[in-house]
Amino acid sequence: MSRLSVIIPGFYFASISAKIKKSGADDLALVFSKNVAVTAGVFTTNKIKAAPVKITSKRIVSQKGQAIIINSGNANACTGKRGYNDAEEITEKTARALGISSKLIYASSTGVIGRPLPIEKIKKALPELVRKLSPSVLEQAASAIMTTDTFAKISFRKITINGKTGTIAGIAKGAGMICPNMATMLCFIFTDIAIKPHALNSALREAVKNSFNRITIDNDMSTNDMALIMANGSLQNKPIIKISSEYRKFTSALSDITHDLAKMIVEDGEGATKHIEIIVRGAKTETDAGNVATSIANSMLVKTAIYGNDPNWGRIIAAAGYSGVDIKEEKIDIYINNVKLASKGVGTKKEEIARNILTKKNINITINLNMGKKSVKVLTCDLTEKYIAINAHYTT
Amino acid sequence: MSRLSVIIPGFYFASISAKIKKSGADDLALVFSKNVAVTAGVFTTNKIKAAPVKITSKRIVSQKGQAIIINSGNANACTGKRGYNDAEEITEKTARALGISSKLIYASSTGVIGRPLPIEKIKKALPELVRKLSPSVLEQAASAIMTTDTFAKISFRKITINGKTGTIAGIAKGAGMICPNMATMLCFIFTDIAIKPHALNSALREAVKNSFNRITIDNDMSTNDMALIMANGSLQNKPIIKISSEYRKFTSALSDITHDLAKMIVEDGEGATKHIEIIVRGAKTETDAGNVATSIANSMLVKTAIYGNDPNWGRIIAAAGYSGVDIKEEKIDIYINNVKLASKGVGTKKEEIARNILTKKNINITINLNMGKKSVKVLTCDLTEKYIAINAHYTT
Repeated sequence: MSRLSVIIPGFYFASISAKIKKSGADDLALVFSKNVAVTAGVFTTNKIKAAPVKITSKRIVSQKGQAIIINSGNANACTGKRGYNDAEEITEKTARALGISSKLIYASSTGVIGRPLPIEKIKKALPELVRKLSPSVLEQAASAIMTTDTFAKISFRKITINGKTGTIAGIAKGAGMICPNMATMLCFIFTDIAIKPHALNSALREAVKNSFNRITIDNDMSTNDMALIMANGSLQNKPIIKISSEYRKFTSALSDITHDLAKMIVEDGEGATKHIEIIVRGAKTETDAGNVATSIANSMLVKTAIYGNDPNWGRIIAAAGYSGVDIKEEKIDIYINNVKLASKGVGTKKEEIARNILTKKNINITINLNMGKKSVKVLTCDLTEKYIAINAHYTT
Repeated sequence: MSRLSVIIPGFYFASISAKIKKSGADDLALVFSKNVAVTAGVFTTNKIKAAPVKITSKRIVSQKGQAIIINSGNANACTGKRGYNDAEEITEKTARALGISSKLIYASSTGVIGRPLPIEKIKKALPELVRKLSPSVLEQAASAIMTTDTFAKISFRKITINGKTGTIAGIAKGAGMICPNMATMLCFIFTDIAIKPHALNSALREAVKNSFNRITIDNDMSTNDMALIMANGSLQNKPIIKISSEYRKFTSALSDITHDLAKMIVEDGEGATKHIEIIVRGAKTETDAGNVATSIANSMLVKTAIYGNDPNWGRIIAAAGYSGVDIKEEKIDIYINNVKLASKGVGTKKEEIARNILTKKNINITINLNMGKKSVKVLTCDLTEKYIAINAHYTT
């Protein structure tokens, strides 16, 4: 999927090296829509918010947008008034270069926290960046927003609305500082399908809830996370309203895209060697299921056990036990892939079979609480020495 | 302190290898008081509780005890009805060997979850264990309860009560699966000082609150944690009552002991190379201060940064930001040891000085929220490749 070049009518992309990153890799990306697009967003719930998050979450109240300027290599977070002014100035310079109002420009940053944004480098790179805008370089934009990511993350779907084929495409960056109950990373989604602001907002929230809010790598929540979606209406369909079959089709496709991107983020977890799905079944409520799954997914002891091919279901049940959910030990069944390791809270002595399964790259852990009918799936990855190495030496 | 041999009048200790551990190290310990002792305890808040925790927390309602039988190498957790019966049987056999009621015997286990207790091995070792009881082998008992601990943890204080010198001594095991808001590990404390049950209970809770509940290694909460204290009254002082200067003296000494043990547990954190104190000042409430400190102490990104000598204060402020506490970025000051890295939420460019300080073994991180007058200190350690290696291969 990520190998195809996808064109979303009316959207233009560009990326460039502004030399923010020492490596010389592209670190500045621009997205431009020829029409003013209906725009929606979700943002980090961290109390410490980066300057671009502050500006973007303020401007998005208009539900309109036409461009996004994104840099990697510097988060522009905890940079005080100067950081805010820097982010504002960049949107103004971008607006001028594009010939549109700065109110229609959104800003996004990712990288190291607490260092002033190298604004002169960005300003210097802007004219060339604008010149490079093209309908076909979504992949380059996806690459330009990477930090410790090892591959660019793109997903798209084509759906038919009123007999016309529209495109929805998203790019994301992730890797570290990923945890549930927030936007969790940078994600930008673009579509030529016309949709009403209220419907777009609702569809985005629905899609994020079951994707980005159901993944966790290290339980650390970033200051910069955002997911933005722009719908520019180039398809010229009748704008989708919230209560309609078109809305359900749109939301379903959007959810597929965010799910794809979420999965890619987990697969690219820093230092990860395995992709783990935690499935909690038989919960009384969805909240209970989510809390148990997240507690297991965040357990360092579970994640290191999976890394070591160790079917240590005791760590899994212990993490379920401290989730705060009222569970009953004597009702719990635990499976790794299809091997039942614990039945009614007691081991089945199938550790040796499970040990072989654990050498695989894709691991499913299923916990049936046998207390109700709700289930939730959370995606995560194992915890390895390489995660430590990456994060012990990141700013240097 | 841990090199001294301490005798607590009226208490006898023994340890032995029951061959539960493959290594042949001592794995079974017994504590016996010649008198029935006033006893208090705190236990894991994990919903999944090991069999010995179930039995001990039930029996302790009597506030009386005379012996504790403790094994390492097997947690006897998630072992169903059989595990409960096994733990009960061991206390009965111990009672018979000691010639006392099994109601006065407490059980405690630590080790791998989900495997049946090798009860025959324990029963076989019991007669020799009882024969070995001696007033002077507290250190051996401390060694026998170790799992991945690298050193035995002992602390004691002598205090004068009604003109008589009494002793309070504690042993603990920790290392992994340590996190706040619970008993957090195994800890056994013994004193010859006479104290009323209600006063002992209250003193223990006070001491645990500011020590074991203020440390975190990996945010994983065990199924087996308990802290027990026995006061056998051998000193023959007038029993301490709750509202008295003797109570305050007792509680202060007990708090010093639990603080010592908590500190040793963190110093012995699995794979740790550094001892980190997180001090949060200027909070509106103690709860706020505790939540911010714990959030920072549990952040894998903070712990790996400290490991890598990286003064990445952005990760510290981000962890404060997702603690759920209402903090204000523009008020926050951050110090590593005495170097002010951030002032009013903005970097001071002193990273290079801090980088040198971070090569030390003892690191203080101070966060002043500048919103109130409450402060809390939480102890933790760094996160290293060795933690991963230890925990990826623990059951094998």
